[in-house]
Amino acid sequence: MTDTVTPVAPAPTAYDDTTAADAARAYELDRRHVFHSWSAQAEIDPMVVTRAEGSWLWDGAGNRLLDFTSQLVFTNLGHQHPRVVRAIQEQAATLCTVAPSSVNAARSEAARLIASHTPDGLDRIFFTNGGADANEHAIRMARLHTGRPKVLSRYRSYHGGTQLAINVTGDPRRWANDSASTGTVHFFGPFLYRSAFSATTEAEECERALAHLEQVIALEGPQTIAAIMLESIPGTAGIMVPPPGYLTGVRELCDRHGILLIADEVMAGFGRSGRWFAVEHDGVTPDLLTFAKGVNSGYVPLGGVAISEAVHQTFAHRSYPGGLTYSGHPLACAAAVATIETMEDERVVEHAAALGQEVFGPGLEELAGRHDWIGEVRGTGVFWALELVSDRATREPLAPYGGSSPQMAAVLAACKREGLLPMSNFNRIHVVPPLTISAEEARTGLAMLDRALTAARADA
Amino acid sequence: MTDTVTPVAPAPTAYDDTTAADAARAYELDRRHVFHSWSAQAEIDPMVVTRAEGSWLWDGAGNRLLDFTSQLVFTNLGHQHPRVVRAIQEQAATLCTVAPSSVNAARSEAARLIASHTPDGLDRIFFTNGGADANEHAIRMARLHTGRPKVLSRYRSYHGGTQLAINVTGDPRRWANDSASTGTVHFFGPFLYRSAFSATTEAEECERALAHLEQVIALEGPQTIAAIMLESIPGTAGIMVPPPGYLTGVRELCDRHGILLIADEVMAGFGRSGRWFAVEHDGVTPDLLTFAKGVNSGYVPLGGVAISEAVHQTFAHRSYPGGLTYSGHPLACAAAVATIETMEDERVVEHAAALGQEVFGPGLEELAGRHDWIGEVRGTGVFWALELVSDRATREPLAPYGGSSPQMAAVLAACKREGLLPMSNFNRIHVVPPLTISAEEARTGLAMLDRALTAARADA
Repeated sequence: MTDTVTPVAPAPTAYDDTTAADAARAYELDRRHVFHSWSAQAEIDPMVVTRAEGSWLWDGAGNRLLDFTSQLVFTNLGHQHPRVVRAIQEQAATLCTVAPSSVNAARSEAARLIASHTPDGLDRIFFTNGGADANEHAIRMARLHTGRPKVLSRYRSYHGGTQLAINVTGDPRRWANDSASTGTVHFFGPFLYRSAFSATTEAEECERALAHLEQVIALEGPQTIAAIMLESIPGTAGIMVPPPGYLTGVRELCDRHGILLIADEVMAGFGRSGRWFAVEHDGVTPDLLTFAKGVNSGYVPLGGVAISEAVHQTFAHRSYPGGLTYSGHPLACAAAVATIETMEDERVVEHAAALGQEVFGPGLEELAGRHDWIGEVRGTGVFWALELVSDRATREPLAPYGGSSPQMAAVLAACKREGLLPMSNFNRIHVVPPLTISAEEARTGLAMLDRALTAARADA
Repeated sequence: MTDTVTPVAPAPTAYDDTTAADAARAYELDRRHVFHSWSAQAEIDPMVVTRAEGSWLWDGAGNRLLDFTSQLVFTNLGHQHPRVVRAIQEQAATLCTVAPSSVNAARSEAARLIASHTPDGLDRIFFTNGGADANEHAIRMARLHTGRPKVLSRYRSYHGGTQLAINVTGDPRRWANDSASTGTVHFFGPFLYRSAFSATTEAEECERALAHLEQVIALEGPQTIAAIMLESIPGTAGIMVPPPGYLTGVRELCDRHGILLIADEVMAGFGRSGRWFAVEHDGVTPDLLTFAKGVNSGYVPLGGVAISEAVHQTFAHRSYPGGLTYSGHPLACAAAVATIETMEDERVVEHAAALGQEVFGPGLEELAGRHDWIGEVRGTGVFWALELVSDRATREPLAPYGGSSPQMAAVLAACKREGLLPMSNFNRIHVVPPLTISAEEARTGLAMLDRALTAARADA
């Protein structure tokens, strides 16, 4: 780490939580007053986090855990990177906030830096608070640019929690919120391990998935379709790296029919996949690219849409009918500037790519050789999934789609006992630590996971 | 101001903007890379803001402006309040961020403090990134709690920029986004100056507006209505303080039909109206109360929903199907803790109420006595609107609904020449400075507005 500035020391405050008594109070107040996302409020027992540094965090009992989650896959620079902390402190001292209609230096510089890394031509940045509203605004831009109503998106995808974003989402979180929003249509993407096309090779899966999409477009009516929205690599839905040529094929279908391609890079972007953006793996330039999370490691809420010149021109002399109070928030943008500069200076994206090739890829394959619950290992960079199955032949998942199971619960509990904070989704374990994790820490985590799988299997 | 801590000095950085050259660069990069909210991108000439303090800010040319906008009505403590700046710096040094599923001390304490000021029983806090997603989630909670689809909201209202929030909105920003979202129904609220009910007194307006709402409920079908969503005092739509008894009447209609009352306090809340929450003026307790902006003076993006025990119980053993990555962001919550403690210690709400009664109310009435463009003065606390009209008898607005006019443009330009940053909406000037503005500064601003109106009238 090349950083040279020193962060301001935390000062004890009434809500400092570094002692056991403070942790207990934080827990008690949480249970009394905090309503948690995606939860049955009376059935959760949340972990107190009192401290975090790099790839490690400490719970309320003082246990140190290796963070294989990057929280919700967003602390790409790890916890408390001193350069980003310092940038936030300095921007706070300079100018915390300003209306979105003004010009602000941190906002301008963040936009310039983001545009310098997005695919060519995506040079205009609309800032939002997170990924959900970024996707909502990208859809709005596409609809108004094309004058068409529909958005096609994948099954096995997640695009955010607000009403439109959850309706384009293709995972069980949509079910309770399904208002059949006007013009939301779902199709199948490539996913060889659980192929919707009876394919047996990556090339076949790619070809058939594109043929399927072509049929969906033809039957929905190309002239009704504003956009195809895709996570460049679907994230929470399973980290299914698309086969080479798939995104190129989607781009060609879009071009043929005047449909915009919206790449959702909220989770995959900013180095997670071993490239700045995951569309680069296939050399594809979308019309709109949405981001959040890694843009500033989530240190301050921030998301956004990178916009092509053509879409920008649509709103050059016609007002864009959308906005938000905190668009381009200076504190969030200053954190983005420091994050991106750190990623450049410390070669974080190259490090992520190398970790994938040298540590996570081979290390997880090795685990698969020892644990027959592991049906498939897939991923790239620092973005990996283990598909856990009770039977490798039938590929029966270790937990049902949308649910959990005693076996999955045992794996997660064993990870925590080993000192590893795991991320899971249904029958999958996702291996998604900070991109700045060292090779040694990564191997330590894989060894913990190895022991946890052994222990859980023994209990099962 | 009782604050005793000293903020960390801003350090020069590559994106520091305190010099003219830096301001020029910020402007150039903005025009090249930043896509602005609610704007035709090629037709704006945004002001560079290089510095701000209290109720003042400085533009790129070094001009000092008195901020009668609180930006977008959110810097309730003014700019760069040292106590909030310090809290952000300390939290940044302690723990910038953590997943929403964990317990965090700043989040717990913010929830406790917010719940200590919301109306009785609204003790559970779901944190969002801003007002739009707060309103989206409040609607979701109401629909799932009641099992009913519809949300009734006012014409002349604003509830946020995401697709569902903009569809419940009742202002022209909805028009380009109108997807006739399932179950969004609009009704008329009380607004005597432009009565929808041919009323001539406040009492008559109140009675007729309630009778109208009762009819809408009956004709839409009470058993189809999940919630009535109302800004307790409509903000951008015109700061129409409801007549006494109106909110109580709405509450009674809701109770009679098992409909939830959602109070949108995003703009009116946290002291703006001279009370912690504007529902207090009528002594009403909603089932859900949404907030953002003033909760932490907008120093870090934050919003939320305060939830009744009954709604909370609906999600005690059933998962709430909603969430977001940055829910309860520690940095945002630490800013909220410092903001609320400052408001308590410095008696900011009492100051706002006194300013309304002693300075803004009488001062604006005095202006109305001298400028016949002022058709009506209305407001409370530090939340005031001047309704500008070309003819007091016909009440012809000085700019059409949803538009502007040369006269309005002249008023705004004259304000800026006087050194006043004004807020306008169509034919209205809103007087909404920070709640911490001194009586002297407030009078200075009113004098600027007085001269600006004279100058603009002379030009017209």
